[in-house]
Amino acid sequence: MKIDGTPYRSIWVDEADGWSVRIIDQTKLPWSVDIVRVTDVDTMAHAIKAMLVRGAPLIGASAAYGVALALRADASDSNLRSALTLLGETRPTAINLRWALARMEKVLTPLTQNARVAAAYAEALRICDEDVATNEAIGRTGLPLLAAHGKDGRRINVLTHCNAGWIATVDWGTALAPIYMAHDSGLNVHVWVEETRPRNQGASLTAWELGKHGVPHTVIADNAGGHMMQRGDVDLVIVGTDRVTRAGDVANKIGTYLKALAAVDNNIPFWVALPSSTIDWTISNGLTDIPIEERSPLEVTTMTGRALDGSIATVRIVPTSSPAANPAFDVTPARLVTGLITERGLCDANEAALTEMFQDLA
Amino acid sequence: MKIDGTPYRSIWVDEADGWSVRIIDQTKLPWSVDIVRVTDVDTMAHAIKAMLVRGAPLIGASAAYGVALALRADASDSNLRSALTLLGETRPTAINLRWALARMEKVLTPLTQNARVAAAYAEALRICDEDVATNEAIGRTGLPLLAAHGKDGRRINVLTHCNAGWIATVDWGTALAPIYMAHDSGLNVHVWVEETRPRNQGASLTAWELGKHGVPHTVIADNAGGHMMQRGDVDLVIVGTDRVTRAGDVANKIGTYLKALAAVDNNIPFWVALPSSTIDWTISNGLTDIPIEERSPLEVTTMTGRALDGSIATVRIVPTSSPAANPAFDVTPARLVTGLITERGLCDANEAALTEMFQDLA
Repeated sequence: MKIDGTPYRSIWVDEADGWSVRIIDQTKLPWSVDIVRVTDVDTMAHAIKAMLVRGAPLIGASAAYGVALALRADASDSNLRSALTLLGETRPTAINLRWALARMEKVLTPLTQNARVAAAYAEALRICDEDVATNEAIGRTGLPLLAAHGKDGRRINVLTHCNAGWIATVDWGTALAPIYMAHDSGLNVHVWVEETRPRNQGASLTAWELGKHGVPHTVIADNAGGHMMQRGDVDLVIVGTDRVTRAGDVANKIGTYLKALAAVDNNIPFWVALPSSTIDWTISNGLTDIPIEERSPLEVTTMTGRALDGSIATVRIVPTSSPAANPAFDVTPARLVTGLITERGLCDANEAALTEMFQDLA
Repeated sequence: MKIDGTPYRSIWVDEADGWSVRIIDQTKLPWSVDIVRVTDVDTMAHAIKAMLVRGAPLIGASAAYGVALALRADASDSNLRSALTLLGETRPTAINLRWALARMEKVLTPLTQNARVAAAYAEALRICDEDVATNEAIGRTGLPLLAAHGKDGRRINVLTHCNAGWIATVDWGTALAPIYMAHDSGLNVHVWVEETRPRNQGASLTAWELGKHGVPHTVIADNAGGHMMQRGDVDLVIVGTDRVTRAGDVANKIGTYLKALAAVDNNIPFWVALPSSTIDWTISNGLTDIPIEERSPLEVTTMTGRALDGSIATVRIVPTSSPAANPAFDVTPARLVTGLITERGLCDANEAALTEMFQDLA
């Protein structure tokens, strides 16, 4: 999508040298757009772990390019295995990471060492291009859900949590794809952006990308989402996901489950947008089978933002003697999900519907 | 309760001069304990409005002392009326404010001007002493609910939202009164403290007061409360309230409703602790009849804390071009409330139970 009128992807190979990988350092957003040049697999692993790149689909694409960078340095079997292990251990929850690495492994392992580098770059680009096409298809699937609320120019109020926008993918986003498509087609869309503590991806990323593309939005505290639904100011909820089980349970950013409960309580549709690569066909019960990443308590006890003098500063917001806990994801049981917005169409969140729509994958 | 071993109330008349009013500036917590001397009604009104004092019971006590300060300057009927109006307009949601002012008006109006100042101080002190006794009774009512989960030294996990502790009242607190009582009686209590965005009263006030009194606790993002319940780490929820309707609907800090939904979904008791002065007998339907204060968007777009150099700094956390909305309270329908912890005992959250327990007030 666009940043101040210029189209971007969130990851691309540098045009000048043809091999280094360019990413936007998302830890610097919204205050500066820093394009980082990544030239080795260790740096890419760090970029994923430290969340310079984040969002399940973008993590997968980044890992794929990480493999390409690793093979460029050393295309041996042992180095391929090392790279797959290193990249696979960067983040525990997103299924796309494992999916992309498995795909790279399958393509590259049979090849001679000489053929591997070019094949790795080609496969990584294919993963990116497919992601863009997939997300555009997700947008087309979701567009009618928004349009149904926007008759005669009526304002369509969508609530979203965290960031499942174009910078969480290669382009378009998942949850935001139908929103961009609705906006670009002239519908009167307005997004309630939940700030999404503790890392504030809503306030710092979703608000930023919607603003840069020109989509009207309002930031609210995560606590306010239920109240907005109670007072009739939300037409539908759309969120992304890091992993969906074959039974339709949805792992997503911590706090998603609370919004699903509120949506059900207020009879508001709660949709989850995802590419089929997010589905983990090996598990059913999200509550017992999805590992939940526990991140640093510092994300809860401190907050980073822009100080009055324009510098980026971190302040402590919890007494120094108080401990904090920081689970990064929660699981929304399928029973609370209105449906899934996928690249193949709308799908009910249950095993029968999922295995029917994705027979070739399930 | 205690600050580092020394017992405090949250509001008191200065012992040296016998008339000025001392409060703890809660906007400075947890980083410094600033005792402010209030000598006139305008300053007290500002202290309530700017939340140097906050929490429904403490707002009522502060307003009562505000009337005393006003009459000390001018005990005329017109000045009494001005003071009641000024103080009554400081905050819209808490019923205790109106309750305390109505009580002061009723006591003071019939008196001669000469008698009013002493009577106002006496009545304000009575309101404070009654609040302490009431909260202690709330603690006794709630204690068995905690004790039931703490057999054989088992850790009792209580989740609370916002601050309904001793500094939200004159002493003991409402939601925290049973917790202090359980802790002081040797039970193994641990509190999940939700940070309570956007003003962070949980992280900055509840964590501070529990820590200063020595109660084990862990701060979590508001988003994490539902997940903690899903994984079995919460035995019960106790929150305070700013207003309860005669039907048992509960207005409390924004986000409370979401935790009630999660508690019901996980079969966890959701208790609301309150003095009967918090009940608004004039209304039934909380969703339609309780005005919800809309506060400054700056509370959402900025965050204040302690910088690395020890100074208190404010950072912006939302892009400057993104608007924000900031409703300060939400309403939890009575159907989601397990029961009310009152100074007279446990009470079901419905009109029949409330009017039976509080026949003299209803």
